[in-house]
Amino acid sequence: MQLPDTALREGVAESAAAVLERLRVRSPRVHCITNAVAQNFTANMLLAAGCVPSMSLDREEIASFVVEADALLVNLGTLDADRRAAAEIAVATATQHGVPWVLDPVFVDRTRTRATFAGALIARSPTVVRLNHAEFATLAGAEPSADAAIAAARANGIVIALSGATDLVTDGEWTAVIANGHPLMAKVTAMGCAASALVAACLGVELDAFRASAAALTLMGVAGEVAAAKSEGPGSFAVAIVDAIHRLDKATLLAHAKVK
Amino acid sequence: MQLPDTALREGVAESAAAVLERLRVRSPRVHCITNAVAQNFTANMLLAAGCVPSMSLDREEIASFVVEADALLVNLGTLDADRRAAAEIAVATATQHGVPWVLDPVFVDRTRTRATFAGALIARSPTVVRLNHAEFATLAGAEPSADAAIAAARANGIVIALSGATDLVTDGEWTAVIANGHPLMAKVTAMGCAASALVAACLGVELDAFRASAAALTLMGVAGEVAAAKSEGPGSFAVAIVDAIHRLDKATLLAHAKVK
Amino acid sequence: MQLPDTALREGVAESAAAVLERLRVRSPRVHCITNAVAQNFTANMLLAAGCVPSMSLDREEIASFVVEADALLVNLGTLDADRRAAAEIAVATATQHGVPWVLDPVFVDRTRTRATFAGALIARSPTVVRLNHAEFATLAGAEPSADAAIAAARANGIVIALSGATDLVTDGEWTAVIANGHPLMAKVTAMGCAASALVAACLGVELDAFRASAAALTLMGVAGEVAAAKSEGPGSFAVAIVDAIHRLDKATLLAHAKVK
Repeated sequence: MQLPDTALREGVAESAAAVLERLRVRSPRVHCITNAVAQNFTANMLLAAGCVPSMSLDREEIASFVVEADALLVNLGTLDADRRAAAEIAVATATQHGVPWVLDPVFVDRTRTRATFAGALIARSPTVVRLNHAEFATLAGAEPSADAAIAAARANGIVIALSGATDLVTDGEWTAVIANGHPLMAKVTAMGCAASALVAACLGVELDAFRASAAALTLMGVAGEVAAAKSEGPGSFAVAIVDAIHRLDKATLLAHAKVK
Repeated sequence: MQLPDTALREGVAESAAAVLERLRVRSPRVHCITNAVAQNFTANMLLAAGCVPSMSLDREEIASFVVEADALLVNLGTLDADRRAAAEIAVATATQHGVPWVLDPVFVDRTRTRATFAGALIARSPTVVRLNHAEFATLAGAEPSADAAIAAARANGIVIALSGATDLVTDGEWTAVIANGHPLMAKVTAMGCAASALVAACLGVELDAFRASAAALTLMGVAGEVAAAKSEGPGSFAVAIVDAIHRLDKATLLAHAKVK
Repeated sequence: MQLPDTALREGVAESAAAVLERLRVRSPRVHCITNAVAQNFTANMLLAAGCVPSMSLDREEIASFVVEADALLVNLGTLDADRRAAAEIAVATATQHGVPWVLDPVFVDRTRTRATFAGALIARSPTVVRLNHAEFATLAGAEPSADAAIAAARANGIVIALSGATDLVTDGEWTAVIANGHPLMAKVTAMGCAASALVAACLGVELDAFRASAAALTLMGVAGEVAAAKSEGPGSFAVAIVDAIHRLDKATLLAHAKVK
C-alpha cells in the first residue's frame, strides 16, 4: 500500500527537512569503513551536514568506535584484508548493539571476490544497501527496476537505495523515486560513497530506515543542484556541494525536492 | 617568569612572521605519519607554506625519510598496525638524530588502546604535543586549563599546544594564548592535523619549540580568518585556507595576530 | 630522424586534441596503484578527463581490475608491502594481457629500497616512465638532459616522460619538448602523480606511446595554464585544474600548446 503521490512527495521532503534539522542538533557519530579515495570527501560531507565522522579501520579499536557510534557505514571500495577484517568486527558489533548500518557494495560488478563478500554481508542484514545500477544487477541477478528493487528489499528485509539518473528508495512496502541531482555528481569520485555515508548519518537520527534513506538521497540531490548552479566543472562542484550541504535549509529543500 | 602582554604579543607575532619567512627560504622537509583522511590536505598545507612533505609509512624506508627530515609529525588518526610500527621506527630515528617531532594524539578520548599508545609516546619526549580539549582531558587526567597545560608541560618537559576556541601554547615557563581562528576550522576534517603538521614545519626552522608552536598556531589562525572572509561554507573554506597560507605575509600576520 | 619543429609542434598538439576526444568518447578504464596522498585527486582528474578510474590494491582482486583495464599506473609513492605486492601482480597481469602501463618512480631519490624496486620494475618494460629530474638522475645515474633521456629510452626500449619547467618526452627516436605548465603545479601535491595517471589514460586510447605521453603532458600543461589564470593560490588552483581538464577543448589546446 502506497500513499498518493502528493502526500508521499510532501512527506519525503518534509521528513528530509526534519532529519536535516536533527543532524545539526544531535550531531550523530558516524563510523565509516570506507575506501581510501573517499575518506577525506566523506568526512567533509558528514561534518558539513553536522555529524561527527570517524574512520578507523584497526581491528584493535574499531569496536570501540562502533559501540559509541549512532550509525555505521561499510563501503567496499579499495577492499583489502584490513577492511574485510574491520567490516567483520564492525558488523558484529553493530548487530550486537543495535547500531544501524549501511552497505555500499562499490564495484561488485568488477570482481567476483568482492561480490561474494558483499553477498555474505547482505545475509547479515544491513539496515540499508545503497548501490548503483551495475552493482544492483550483479547482486540481485536482475535488471534494475522498481519491481526488482522492491523484490530485493522484501527478500532480504532491508531498504534498497538505488542511485541513478533518478534515485529509488524502497523498503518493500513504501517506494519513493527522487528525481533530484545533477550529471556532475557522476564526474566526482566518492559522490556515491558520500551519499551512502549520509544515509548512515540519517539513520543515526531517524529510526524509519525508509524515511532516513529517502531523506539522505533528497539532501544529496538538492545539494547537488544548488552546487551545480555555482560550478564551472567537477572540481568546483566537489567544493560547492560541501558548502551546499552546510547551508541547506528547509525552504531550499522543499522548493527543490522532486519526489515521485 | 613572563614578559608583559604587549611584548609577548609582539614577540609571538613578529617571530611568527620570521618563521614564515624561513619556511619559504629553507623549504624544510617534514615527514608525516598521519591518518588516511588527512594526508592530502596536510601535504597541500605544507606545500603552500613552502615545505617539502613526505608521507611514507613503510617500515623498510621510513627511517631514510626521517633521517633527512627537518621535523617529524606523528598523528594517531586511523591508527593501525602499520602506523604503530612506523611510529616506533620514526620516533627512535628522530630521537637518535635529533630531529624534532610533534605528537598529535587524535581521538585518544575515543579508544583506550590509542590512549595507551599515546602515553607511551609522550614518555619518549616529543618536542611538542598538539591536541584538543577532549584529548588533553584524557591524557592529562585533568580539565583543560592554562594551569593544567603548564603543569603537563613541566611534568613531561615538552611544549603543549592546546587548540580550542582560543589556542594555548606553553613550555611550562612561557605561555601564549592565541585568539585567532574561525568556527569553520572545526567543520573541515584534518584542520587540526594540518595545524600539527605546521607545528612540525616550524620546528624545522625554529629551535625554540615554544616560539615555533606559537608561530604555527598563529599562522593557522590568521590564515583561517583570511580564508573565512572569502568562503561560503566549509568546502570553499578548505580551499581558501590553502591559498591564504600560500599568500600570507608579515603585514597581514601582524595586523591579525591576537596573542594574549 | 625527427620532423621539422613546426610539423612536430602541430603534430603533437593535433594528436593531443584527438586523444582528448577519444578519452571522452571511449572512457578508458585506468587502474591505478598510487599513493595514499594522490588517490582522490588522481581519481578526480581521470574522471574529469572522461576516464573510469579504479584504485584497488588488494592482491586477491587487483588482477580482475587490470585484466579489464585499458591501462595501468604503478606509482611508488607511500610504497609499502601491500603496494609492492599489488605492483607485482598488476605488472605480471598487464604484461600477460598486453595492457600498457606507466611507472611513476616517486621519491626514488630519497630511499635506496625504493630505487631498487623501481629498477626491477623498469627491467619489466613499462610502456612509459614519467618522472622528475631528481628521480631521473637517481635511476639513470646521469644528469637530466635530452641526450640522457634519449639514451635511457633506447637502452630500456621505453618512453621517457621527464617533467620539469619544460617537459621532455622521448621514445629514443622522436623527442618533444613541451613548454606548457605553471609554477603552481609544483605547489599542489600529487600533480605529477595525476600527470602520470593521465599518461596511462592516453595510452588506453592511443597505441603510439610517444604520442600518448606527449598528449598527456600537453593536456596537463595547458590545463595548468588555464587554471592558473583563475586561481589565487595552490588551493584554488587544484580545484581549477580539474575544471580545466573537464572543459578543455581543441581550440584551447591548439592555442596554448608550446611544443618545441
